[in-house]
Amino acid sequence: MSLAEKVLQNDIRAAARLMRLLDDEVEEGREELKKLYQYTGKSYIIGITGPPGAGKSTLVDQLIAAFRKEGKKIGVIAVDPSSPFTGGAILGDRIRMQRHSSDPEVFIRSLASRGHLGGLTASTEEICLVMDAMGKDIIILETVGVGQDEVEVVDLAHTSILVTVPGLGDDVQAIKAGVMEIGNIFVVNKADREGADRAFREIVAMLDMISWDGRFRPPVIKVQAHIGLGIDELVEKIYNHKKFLEDHGLFHKFFSKRAKSMFEKVLMSELGKRLKKRILADIRWADWERYLETRMIDPYTLAFNVLDEMITINYKGGTNEFSRL
Amino acid sequence: MSLAEKVLQNDIRAAARLMRLLDDEVEEGREELKKLYQYTGKSYIIGITGPPGAGKSTLVDQLIAAFRKEGKKIGVIAVDPSSPFTGGAILGDRIRMQRHSSDPEVFIRSLASRGHLGGLTASTEEICLVMDAMGKDIIILETVGVGQDEVEVVDLAHTSILVTVPGLGDDVQAIKAGVMEIGNIFVVNKADREGADRAFREIVAMLDMISWDGRFRPPVIKVQAHIGLGIDELVEKIYNHKKFLEDHGLFHKFFSKRAKSMFEKVLMSELGKRLKKRILADIRWADWERYLETRMIDPYTLAFNVLDEMITINYKGGTNEFSRL
Repeated sequence: MSLAEKVLQNDIRAAARLMRLLDDEVEEGREELKKLYQYTGKSYIIGITGPPGAGKSTLVDQLIAAFRKEGKKIGVIAVDPSSPFTGGAILGDRIRMQRHSSDPEVFIRSLASRGHLGGLTASTEEICLVMDAMGKDIIILETVGVGQDEVEVVDLAHTSILVTVPGLGDDVQAIKAGVMEIGNIFVVNKADREGADRAFREIVAMLDMISWDGRFRPPVIKVQAHIGLGIDELVEKIYNHKKFLEDHGLFHKFFSKRAKSMFEKVLMSELGKRLKKRILADIRWADWERYLETRMIDPYTLAFNVLDEMITINYKGGTNEFSRL
Repeated sequence: MSLAEKVLQNDIRAAARLMRLLDDEVEEGREELKKLYQYTGKSYIIGITGPPGAGKSTLVDQLIAAFRKEGKKIGVIAVDPSSPFTGGAILGDRIRMQRHSSDPEVFIRSLASRGHLGGLTASTEEICLVMDAMGKDIIILETVGVGQDEVEVVDLAHTSILVTVPGLGDDVQAIKAGVMEIGNIFVVNKADREGADRAFREIVAMLDMISWDGRFRPPVIKVQAHIGLGIDELVEKIYNHKKFLEDHGLFHKFFSKRAKSMFEKVLMSELGKRLKKRILADIRWADWERYLETRMIDPYTLAFNVLDEMITINYKGGTNEFSRL
């Protein structure tokens, strides 16, 4: 039986093996993933992001428990930022999910790889596809919400949950700038702490400033993840958002967008590889390199020249004829 | 006088205008930057990274003061992560640099733009070039060290300084993983706090485990940035590292690497733009799109097919003949 077939039968070891192959960018991994692709697109993907110390892992742990009670099969991808500075999230928090590690229907995968072609997003997307093919009903992506990479990871989710905690009060101005576009549900965790009501009200006030007509207005809820308070409400809000997507035909749109973006990424990364090889093999490269090094030519001019000289894009235009770029 | 010429004469308003054009990706901006390029490559670039709350901005403020005493002209690029969650660094800390804002030889620029072509690194690099052309002796890049983007920004620096504070003790294991490759100087800030000696010793112990022969062994120093203690020593260590780079011919290598990496980025981003346009104009695209949406074809297979069909890479090989990919 091929690796892909085993994965489709929810074989955990085969899935782990395939993920490793994908991590290592082994050709075989991609071939197996191709075979799986047609069986994917069924999982519901939930993104959870927020600052270090917001209690994201505890929240994820509680969500796993809640969804497991409903008999759902769960995949979790915990994305660690590539940098060493994460304010303590890396080691301690993961342990909180351990209680699910003996549950065969919960598959947890940490992702911290740097330098993968196409970055963290590409890796996460591939692992999502494997979990999807395994038959996971729900995939939870947990990321620390700092940096472009992590924001992109959140884009992979159907429902994005933004977790914050009281005491980041002064940051509300900063939150304004970027949050609205990425959050579908706002969670104020550690709601027993002083300032929780204020944080809650400030987020609501910010949401009030936006016109939501036709769009899903993100609910704001208070949660105490460490004792499980508010989790049922959170699950309900997730299902509300899911229903909204379904009712508005956005489910289809989501998968279509993902497939196209993946196509684009694979195309560009493969094209980059081939082009690089050719440029380095070009007898003119030694000159170009010298021009660059001595600043006789700037990188922009050289790039445009090389593009015009080396690349021909053939396409079938409306007239059904090939034309040159 | 062109914008480029004005920038070369250290015209602050012209520089700010050019940076805005580059931010907005206006063609004119790039044209002016091309003119400037040959005059760049003279600034010394110092990267400062560390977790939120490590006191990076205070440290930068002190470094500005120290370098100004030597009569150096300074540029500062403060890179804010694109996400709203930064643990309080965005608003409060910047204010600490304000005392230099009336000094015409200190140019401070905050960078928080999302979605720029080529990402944060590309923007930062372009702004570095403008400051370089303005005649800045030293450019300081301040980033929050979380996420791939920020690590890449650090790669732009000649000397990278990693700032940490006592109390992140348990993270030392995590630091091990990634820090060694990016830090040239380690700073334990807030050294009057409990645990400073321990943090210091742990970093030293980690460095001891590595064989540095021929390479620059990063010094570790204790600093109290808020009262200026240890700043002179830090400046000295920066100059030590600079001298090491000069003595080992690494200065040249640095600029050559940067120019090549910039060439590659511009090439790929422009190629991506052109290719996308052609694909969307191709009469077959409607079919391809439908195949993707219905999962009749996977993104990998389609990408490789499109690549083989649409792209011809012409290059001059060793035999001086054009050959096809």
